Amino acid sequence: MKKILCKGFSFSGVVSGLKKNNQKDLGLIYSEVPTSIAGVFTKNRVQAAPVLLDRERIKKGFCRAVIVNSGSANCCTGDQGMKDAISEARLAAYGLNISEELIFVASTGVIGKPLALDKIEAAVPALVKALSPGGINDFAQAIMTTDTVPKIVSRNGNIGGSGFNITGVAKGAGMICPDMATMLCFVCTDAEASPGYLKEALLSSVEKSFNRITIDGDTSTNDTVLVMANGVSGTVVGSRADKTYFKELLGEVLMELAKMVVKDGEGATKLVDIIVKGAASGSEAEKIAKTIANSSLVKTALFGEDANWGRILAAAGRSGVEFDPGLADIYFNDVLMVKNGMGCGDAAEIEATKVLKNPEFTIMVDLKMGEGKASVLTCDFSIDYVKINADYRS
Amino acid sequence: MKKILCKGFSFSGVVSGLKKNNQKDLGLIYSEVPTSIAGVFTKNRVQAAPVLLDRERIKKGFCRAVIVNSGSANCCTGDQGMKDAISEARLAAYGLNISEELIFVASTGVIGKPLALDKIEAAVPALVKALSPGGINDFAQAIMTTDTVPKIVSRNGNIGGSGFNITGVAKGAGMICPDMATMLCFVCTDAEASPGYLKEALLSSVEKSFNRITIDGDTSTNDTVLVMANGVSGTVVGSRADKTYFKELLGEVLMELAKMVVKDGEGATKLVDIIVKGAASGSEAEKIAKTIANSSLVKTALFGEDANWGRILAAAGRSGVEFDPGLADIYFNDVLMVKNGMGCGDAAEIEATKVLKNPEFTIMVDLKMGEGKASVLTCDFSIDYVKINADYRS
Repeated sequence: MKKILCKGFSFSGVVSGLKKNNQKDLGLIYSEVPTSIAGVFTKNRVQAAPVLLDRERIKKGFCRAVIVNSGSANCCTGDQGMKDAISEARLAAYGLNISEELIFVASTGVIGKPLALDKIEAAVPALVKALSPGGINDFAQAIMTTDTVPKIVSRNGNIGGSGFNITGVAKGAGMICPDMATMLCFVCTDAEASPGYLKEALLSSVEKSFNRITIDGDTSTNDTVLVMANGVSGTVVGSRADKTYFKELLGEVLMELAKMVVKDGEGATKLVDIIVKGAASGSEAEKIAKTIANSSLVKTALFGEDANWGRILAAAGRSGVEFDPGLADIYFNDVLMVKNGMGCGDAAEIEATKVLKNPEFTIMVDLKMGEGKASVLTCDFSIDYVKINADYRS
Repeated sequence: MKKILCKGFSFSGVVSGLKKNNQKDLGLIYSEVPTSIAGVFTKNRVQAAPVLLDRERIKKGFCRAVIVNSGSANCCTGDQGMKDAISEARLAAYGLNISEELIFVASTGVIGKPLALDKIEAAVPALVKALSPGGINDFAQAIMTTDTVPKIVSRNGNIGGSGFNITGVAKGAGMICPDMATMLCFVCTDAEASPGYLKEALLSSVEKSFNRITIDGDTSTNDTVLVMANGVSGTVVGSRADKTYFKELLGEVLMELAKMVVKDGEGATKLVDIIVKGAASGSEAEKIAKTIANSSLVKTALFGEDANWGRILAAAGRSGVEFDPGLADIYFNDVLMVKNGMGCGDAAEIEATKVLKNPEFTIMVDLKMGEGKASVLTCDFSIDYVKINADYRS
């Protein structure tokens, strides 16, 4: 991939032995100066030790490095799990020779497995030594679990003639659902921004991106999104206009990553944007969109390239939202398949079926009752999803 | 199967051509005298025409016959759909020479397909001619969709020396979820009971049976449970003790049918009872049990015979219920796999994995916070589930 320049940040990823098959499983992000940091974390009641640790550390708003391991979630590991998360950060702090309070930790993998700290300890020297501005690909690989491709998005911005960069890395694949910070995502920028502003920008961007995607309706115990700003580019996000501009660029990076996550959903073969409009309110539209996006019957029909609109309407009907099914229209891209709650016949179905053969398309439900609108990105539910998840630990 | 004697009822099932492959697709239940009737119906906002029709007719509380077709749900079929449902009942009324107001209708199959009334009209004479007390197997086959076995349960009872029988027939397989009357189920009894009492008995029995099962979290537009009492046995359900006794027997029949429905869930290979106890309240226990029972990740792990307890705890964690994960115990049958939120190690896992190889077992989560308890029956999520639902309409 082309060279990414997010000044002052370096990255690495190495093999520590936490994952089987000699795959990279330990990653590091390092900033040459302290960064502002903001984060959003899983809303699951069951939270992994590194999530609990980061939630504490982020209160101060500053960071120097993030150490991430795959192969073990360090979740449901009790008091020892928290000690291990602290130790994992400390090992990175020793290696980098910086204060351990400025180190954040993220873990992903199987729940309930104790963290093999000895493997991490043995690998940290190589991890630190490998740090380089171009090491982001290694980092992206090291945080993968059932992901099939590394996910990196980078955008250059410009404020008053002064350039800056925002670069994000994510992993996803399973246990992805709206209402969550969702999976692991690390965003670096060389612009200068306060922790308070970063938090505000992150919250609004996550709401429009990661909180609108779903793969299986399950939510993880380890989901973490961190955004770090080190100011090394010299570009300051200062005025209200700058802030709006930066937020939009950040939103673009997160949305692009979110799409990559859904596209690479476990076993996914299709990326589908479920749009609900004409609802009584935005929140009702969202409720319906999420119910459709999470329906196993809708998702298996998408896999089968079957324009089974009855399942879409039935899912909407059980969402808990009141609406008149006799008013509903359903479109596959621009093909009107259902008009006023009734199918538009064989010709429309032939056209809709063509749409379903694409790798990406939209399904729009228009309830024609109000102005409420929402959209959720989802994927299909394939035979491979079951295979992957039946075999995950074995 | 052995001869079932529910006096005064006769049944039939014939091929009308609504389903492909020359399979039985039209069924009839007939009582020689008017019956009391009670019913519960889908809570989906999208309701099929026959559901809307039955909800009207059941207000009077009496019935003579039920005509049921598979192959078409007669749902999302607009005004014509309602006309067709009325016509379907009328065709049965003509054939039986009874008042059409005493005929109930149920349909199951693809949503949005107009009902082929001409096929039904042509088949009704044979359907009526085939009626016999022993025709219940034909009826059970005629209402099947993706079901692989007909589902019939029969129990004999005795009140003060006077015998009676309760016989139920159900179909299920897909679009099954709690919070619903769920799928099609018809129960006949030759005891005498008022419509008001039947309704009360049915509601409490459904709550403990069909509302506690799940296959895929989706709920149908056509779900209907009807119970009919014709009194032909001469046995009267009169006293409070009789009523309790009858309710228990009815509950047994419904629970047995509910189990058969889950066991025969689309692609299911395992029947799993998810029990949550020690919750702050029964409704909180139920919320957690249902979230676990509907989790795609839990269900695929069950299919893979993987004692992946982390997914169980993670599902509980996203149920919206507050609890302390550090207190939770998890059992597979009587094997303690998780103690105070942490795994019990390899020996426990070996034992738990043995449990998972059984076709039926329980998973119990003990939150140790209160007295709340609930259970939900579920099945695993297999490769065949995806195959069946990707191909359903084609």
